[in-house]
Amino acid sequence: MPESVNRSWTIANRPYGYPKESDFAISETEVEDPKHGEILVRTLYLSLDPYMRGRLRDRRSYAIPVGIGDVMVGEGVGRVIASQSEDVAVGDIVACQIGWQEYAVVPAHTARVVDPSMAPISTALGVTGMPGLTAYHGLLAVGRPRPGDTVLVSAASGAVGAVVGQIAKMNGCRVIGTVGSQQKADYCIQELGYDAVINYKTEDVFARLAEAAPDGVDIYFDNVGGTVTDAAIENLALRGRVLVCGQISQYNLEEPEMAPRNLWNLITKQARIEGFLVFNFQNDHDVARARLASWVRDGSLKYREDIVDGFERAPRAFIGLMNGANFGKLLVKMSD
Amino acid sequence: MPESVNRSWTIANRPYGYPKESDFAISETEVEDPKHGEILVRTLYLSLDPYMRGRLRDRRSYAIPVGIGDVMVGEGVGRVIASQSEDVAVGDIVACQIGWQEYAVVPAHTARVVDPSMAPISTALGVTGMPGLTAYHGLLAVGRPRPGDTVLVSAASGAVGAVVGQIAKMNGCRVIGTVGSQQKADYCIQELGYDAVINYKTEDVFARLAEAAPDGVDIYFDNVGGTVTDAAIENLALRGRVLVCGQISQYNLEEPEMAPRNLWNLITKQARIEGFLVFNFQNDHDVARARLASWVRDGSLKYREDIVDGFERAPRAFIGLMNGANFGKLLVKMSD
Repeated sequence: MPESVNRSWTIANRPYGYPKESDFAISETEVEDPKHGEILVRTLYLSLDPYMRGRLRDRRSYAIPVGIGDVMVGEGVGRVIASQSEDVAVGDIVACQIGWQEYAVVPAHTARVVDPSMAPISTALGVTGMPGLTAYHGLLAVGRPRPGDTVLVSAASGAVGAVVGQIAKMNGCRVIGTVGSQQKADYCIQELGYDAVINYKTEDVFARLAEAAPDGVDIYFDNVGGTVTDAAIENLALRGRVLVCGQISQYNLEEPEMAPRNLWNLITKQARIEGFLVFNFQNDHDVARARLASWVRDGSLKYREDIVDGFERAPRAFIGLMNGANFGKLLVKMSD
Repeated sequence: MPESVNRSWTIANRPYGYPKESDFAISETEVEDPKHGEILVRTLYLSLDPYMRGRLRDRRSYAIPVGIGDVMVGEGVGRVIASQSEDVAVGDIVACQIGWQEYAVVPAHTARVVDPSMAPISTALGVTGMPGLTAYHGLLAVGRPRPGDTVLVSAASGAVGAVVGQIAKMNGCRVIGTVGSQQKADYCIQELGYDAVINYKTEDVFARLAEAAPDGVDIYFDNVGGTVTDAAIENLALRGRVLVCGQISQYNLEEPEMAPRNLWNLITKQARIEGFLVFNFQNDHDVARARLASWVRDGSLKYREDIVDGFERAPRAFIGLMNGANFGKLLVKMSD
């Protein structure tokens, strides 16, 4: 193969608070040859996701933290340019744990072959990938929405939130979103069919939520934590469910933020708060992915991608994601 | 009937913070005659329970608050001294919503006839009554304990907690309790069979819990809220469950206490926090009560009552309950 240099983003320092560009460093290595059972993938799209902030933290979690000097973790979509596996052919498009790099050698069994006729290949990182599956399983399996339920979703135009809101609408629910800009608010109402949107940066979330959900919130799909979550718990309907998917408002704090205790609300409302991870539902991923892709094809599930061009921009784009600067699923386009 | 005066405790003022004796006032009225379908009950035991603090608060909850000048609410066990119902006979012992008073006329259908051969009649307010049922249903139906689970229960020697701990032991669990005195700690270990006890007033709950539950807490039965709950959430096992039954540490605060945000733990542990009310399980009360009574009779379920003698002492005893001054199920003995 003609390629010989692989550029990758490695961790230079563990970020303290909000990550800085200097926390990342470019490293150049030889492109390796795949060994038996492995494939060599050239990255087309790299996914940037909020969960990655957790991997930068040196503490016990559901996954091992990234070490200093290691290539930053991340899922990508790429083209197979060499294969030592019978299951994956050169030229196949795969989604896999690729890392923030131009090339990766991965075990073939960890790569999923993407069928471009199902949906655009970039969606394998978004609406038909991990974020879409997170929305699908979280809302349907953990939240168990019923027609007539009022569903609140935070980061409502984001990679996960936009799918939650649209599936909730398919499910006969009334959907309220929270967002951080007027542009995102307009998108939720005009494109995604939300019934109401609250801009948490400019509006009083408690007052607006009480107004928008007069019968209370049956399901709150929590991507952000913080005061939006406080308001949701305060406004739960009887047997309300808070599905804790993400807490991005908290990820860059070095000391935990303080909040009013509110578990009493759970007793009076016989309500629950439940955290979940998408990995738990992997037995149902194929069915879910096929449905998500069919909804993309027939136009009933809209999606928006925020595509940043060029490997060099990955750290800056990731830092923007922590502040909500992106609009839609954030991807880095690495090559054609 | 010879009795003509009924003394009752009414609400003089809504308490601000911890209730004071002056928030209650004795009122004297004529004992009324029961009308069709009603019974006249003479109170033998009055139950004092933490939930009553909520009824003194003028805010929406699962029950209507007590009004100023109204008789304070409370369940009691009494003897029927007049009946206009075919279902309840004079001389029967009944448990009913009796209020803090010496006599009450209640609709017969709201009274439950207590069989003294099942268990001592006072237990109809404790281990075989609402607190026992709360423990039984909360632990078994909401918590779904498995043998080998580590169960943490706060207010571990209390009316609810002591039943939770003992049923968890029957269920093959390892049981850790939190209490507020050495005497209660000794009782939990020596009488109730707890595996470990933490005195939240004298010990570092976070450190001691991490030590006592090295594999994490599978179920935390929360009667108190506050820092014990923070420590439990911090130490949850994978798929841990926090059952929110009571929050007594918070009931007498006029402003909500602040606490570190910790919902991130729910994601990484795929855990949940769930509030419940015992009323939700009333279809299963008869089965549960029969089991609790049989365990009382065969000695496998121990209980302890803290019986205060005399109607006049009810407010002081209730105030003591808010501070954990009682040791066991708190009852007021009203007459023989």
